[in-house]
Amino acid sequence: MTQAVRHDSMRARNLGLVLGEVRRSGPVTRAALAEITGLTKTTVSKMVGDLLDAGMVTETGTLRDGERGRPGTAVSLSGGRVAALGLEINVDYLSACVVDLALTVRLRYTQAVDNRAASPVETLARLQKLIHRAVDEARAAGLVIAGSTLAVPGPVNGGLLHSAPNLGWHDVRVGDLLETGGEPPGVEVENEANLAALGELWFGTGHGDFLHVSGEIGIGAGLVVGGALFRGARGLAGELGHVVVSPDGPACRCGGRGCLEQYAGQEALLRAAGLPAPAPRTAPEATSPDDAVATSGTPAAPGGVAELVGRLRDGDGPALEACARAGRALGIALTSATHLLDPGTIVLGGVFAPLFPWISGPVRDTMTGRLTAMRHAVPEIAVSRLGADAATLGAAGQVIHRVIADPGLHLAAARAVPAPR
Amino acid sequence: MTQAVRHDSMRARNLGLVLGEVRRSGPVTRAALAEITGLTKTTVSKMVGDLLDAGMVTETGTLRDGERGRPGTAVSLSGGRVAALGLEINVDYLSACVVDLALTVRLRYTQAVDNRAASPVETLARLQKLIHRAVDEARAAGLVIAGSTLAVPGPVNGGLLHSAPNLGWHDVRVGDLLETGGEPPGVEVENEANLAALGELWFGTGHGDFLHVSGEIGIGAGLVVGGALFRGARGLAGELGHVVVSPDGPACRCGGRGCLEQYAGQEALLRAAGLPAPAPRTAPEATSPDDAVATSGTPAAPGGVAELVGRLRDGDGPALEACARAGRALGIALTSATHLLDPGTIVLGGVFAPLFPWISGPVRDTMTGRLTAMRHAVPEIAVSRLGADAATLGAAGQVIHRVIADPGLHLAAARAVPAPR
Repeated sequence: MTQAVRHDSMRARNLGLVLGEVRRSGPVTRAALAEITGLTKTTVSKMVGDLLDAGMVTETGTLRDGERGRPGTAVSLSGGRVAALGLEINVDYLSACVVDLALTVRLRYTQAVDNRAASPVETLARLQKLIHRAVDEARAAGLVIAGSTLAVPGPVNGGLLHSAPNLGWHDVRVGDLLETGGEPPGVEVENEANLAALGELWFGTGHGDFLHVSGEIGIGAGLVVGGALFRGARGLAGELGHVVVSPDGPACRCGGRGCLEQYAGQEALLRAAGLPAPAPRTAPEATSPDDAVATSGTPAAPGGVAELVGRLRDGDGPALEACARAGRALGIALTSATHLLDPGTIVLGGVFAPLFPWISGPVRDTMTGRLTAMRHAVPEIAVSRLGADAATLGAAGQVIHRVIADPGLHLAAARAVPAPR
Repeated sequence: MTQAVRHDSMRARNLGLVLGEVRRSGPVTRAALAEITGLTKTTVSKMVGDLLDAGMVTETGTLRDGERGRPGTAVSLSGGRVAALGLEINVDYLSACVVDLALTVRLRYTQAVDNRAASPVETLARLQKLIHRAVDEARAAGLVIAGSTLAVPGPVNGGLLHSAPNLGWHDVRVGDLLETGGEPPGVEVENEANLAALGELWFGTGHGDFLHVSGEIGIGAGLVVGGALFRGARGLAGELGHVVVSPDGPACRCGGRGCLEQYAGQEALLRAAGLPAPAPRTAPEATSPDDAVATSGTPAAPGGVAELVGRLRDGDGPALEACARAGRALGIALTSATHLLDPGTIVLGGVFAPLFPWISGPVRDTMTGRLTAMRHAVPEIAVSRLGADAATLGAAGQVIHRVIADPGLHLAAARAVPAPR
């Protein structure tokens, strides 16, 4: 029994090995795949056959086999059948994207809506319409959605969103409130800061080992090490916003005092600059999915931050001082983070991306003063280029990477869908 | 060429797969190994033969093959030939241990000596005598040392010890100063806090994902996730002692201000309790390796901390207040660490182990006040049971785990040594 289970898991592992090698080295012949993986030719041919049936690979003409000089049909990864749905709920928008197995972005929607003015049930009903639209369009293009991940602005463990203070949500089982009718098959829920870091890795400029800082009203971070997200024991790692900057500082919504968010979160930053926080817009009575706009860019920066950027460009004193103060606090928290995590690069995303020209200097100066004697080098401080799209793209990319690692789970569903006309 | 390299690396991977499976499931037949790994019986038999020649596995009589009912010879991991040397340089002792492939501790020496009174060259010459003695004794027992790791009290990157402020060492290439004459073949140098965490994992009570805190004069930490050490981009992760507790606090040797070490390091703690730091002992003119004592316990706690423990037992006010203050600072730094790393358990080691009854309460209270609203649970706070042995054992264990993961590198050396009489 145990050995039968092991045997199945070894078959699944080998199928993932073959598809992973096709992705890395394709186009590649079956003979070369057998040579590289150490599996028998019969096993490789059977697996390639299964992957062809599922539309995960395609045969791309013939290629001369380098080793033996005989011609063989080459196999490549195919984005034509299997795809993933990436979703995001954030404070002032919903978004969805479809990414295929070759990591090509096939469609992308963003719907501006103030989710603070709505209950979880209302917000999720709205998201569901976006999901149906995305699934329908994907199906029309001959794609089957292998799975979906939803990015939410708070720590998640085992599907439970513990707390999204900026939405006013606590202990919400987000997945249970979504009734997708099996399309996509199950929605995994994950912290947006984690997914934004993965988005930066797969679609943005993140490379090597880096810490991606998601600065919104809350501040989160995602650490990528060796191409994978560092999640911690319960998936709650990366809560940079609650690193202690000053132990007796202002009270924080988390129950602590002097957390980074109290100095460098969007609201603290705007207040310090003498700007009001952006007023919550009223949610439309009924939001049709037609309100969603297909977009290839990022939603506009929130009003308050756009106004702050304008004042910074004009050399406004309080605005400059607010940024310098937030940058020093961010520098202290990132000093502690660097001592603990040792990232190679720190990528500043979210609202810190448009504020980068003014905030990165104080961050770097603070870190240099505190880190150089012991470490010789301060991590490189870089700006994110994906902006608010990072989390949604990371959500879809995570599904694709899991499909490639264990394609066996998706063979049957993918076979059942006719190839696009 | 590329495919030939891949082919070799696949062979090495499969050899590691077989030995790893023997370790996990042994005694196990060749037929079962083929079934489990998906490799052909011929391949498995060849690999088992190589591992037998190298003394890494042994045949343990016959075992009935559960699947087919035919008898087969079972293969088990053998600790009789291949072993690893673990070494440590700390402020007031040197130590060495030999651990075999089955993770049995074969011998262990500790030599009390004040390394602050000596140059790196003197200290390493002394360590070398300990190495020769350990290698000679191991050889007499029929063991071959596959490799060695040396634990040092400071951050290490690529063999370079950046800074061990409590030894007064800066930018020392420790491995280059050791002339071992090829026995052991190369000494890897690694931070003691990292290795202590691994020692806790393999030989102590660490389980699951945990953060091990090495409290000495400096404070370090090692994070174990999924059975592996989290090292960061340059191997410099886990420097808990320099997490910022209060941004305008006392100046620290690292160049920063208000670091945890300034509140909870051994010297700060003793000073706050009204106790002198332990006076550096004078190093003996010439230390013979015969001064080293084989020990199965841990070196005595340093004088100052032993005295502090005595006062705490007597209910001394300043001592209790010093511990409470250090515990609150440790609680703040561990709050930041928990937000960033999300460990399942926090193991307090080094001097925090004997101080655990007095310091763990303030640590837990501080963390509970700051963490519970957002996370529901504070990580379990546990006491280390390995004490000062943790780093040396982790150093040897690291070599053993690498040999098991890639035994091919060690086959030739292991074959050259005659089996013990």
